[in-house]
Amino acid sequence: MEQAENKDELYMRKALYEAEKAAEAGEVPIGAVIVCKDRIISRAHNLTEKLHDVTAHAEMQAITAAADLLGGKYLNDCTLYVTVEPCTMCAGAIGWAQIGRIVYGAADEKRGYHLYAPRALHAKATVTQGVLEPECRKLMQEFFKEKR
Amino acid sequence: MEQAENKDELYMRKALYEAEKAAEAGEVPIGAVIVCKDRIISRAHNLTEKLHDVTAHAEMQAITAAADLLGGKYLNDCTLYVTVEPCTMCAGAIGWAQIGRIVYGAADEKRGYHLYAPRALHAKATVTQGVLEPECRKLMQEFFKEKR
Repeated sequence: MEQAENKDELYMRKALYEAEKAAEAGEVPIGAVIVCKDRIISRAHNLTEKLHDVTAHAEMQAITAAADLLGGKYLNDCTLYVTVEPCTMCAGAIGWAQIGRIVYGAADEKRGYHLYAPRALHAKATVTQGVLEPECRKLMQEFFKEKR
Repeated sequence: MEQAENKDELYMRKALYEAEKAAEAGEVPIGAVIVCKDRIISRAHNLTEKLHDVTAHAEMQAITAAADLLGGKYLNDCTLYVTVEPCTMCAGAIGWAQIGRIVYGAADEKRGYHLYAPRALHAKATVTQGVLEPECRKLMQEFFKEKR
């Protein structure tokens, strides 16, 4: 049990590292990694500002890259680690990709999928929330404090 | 009033043309165009099979291309025409892009956003459904009949 928790924290730190890169680039600091059989197969962070593209969320890019690497559309055996709760769009994409497990850090009370699309994920997907939550949340809070 | 309806049909025919191109390529036959100030600024069809990418829906690509063309993330003054009701993912993207008006042909009773994420669109967005519905639906039905 503790082993599993440590692994989740390990991978969430990788996602946090991606989020920090986003912050440095002036992007909303959200990062994601996708893990398959104990190996990180994609890493991404938010690029909506750089690409002028609302669809360029960390999760979307991580899914596209992972599917490209695996050569298939479905990611049932994969775990997505993302620093903030996915939005409706990303939850829909996670559902289409049939990602088996989702681990996220901080909740998104305003735009999170729990509020707008609670059944968007694949029916068999499991969700773990709150992993490294204080770090994930702090990064977001600091970013938006500076923006104000 | 009739004028407006005719214009919707005109643009929906362009979206249908995209959907037909998808069908010919073995993709789920859904097409989309985005119109801004009476001009089509992007056209796209489903590419999920070709790209092995669940996020490559017609709407997603049309949004990305339109934002790229306009050089900004938001599409408030645009209308999205799509042959089939958007899914949760696409509705989320449509919401982020703040698209002002959405016109679709056939309803998607299984995966449509009305079922999974009814509040995903921008609060001020207006929706028109059922434009060229028989043609849009028929294209989908024929595609899935052949697949069986």
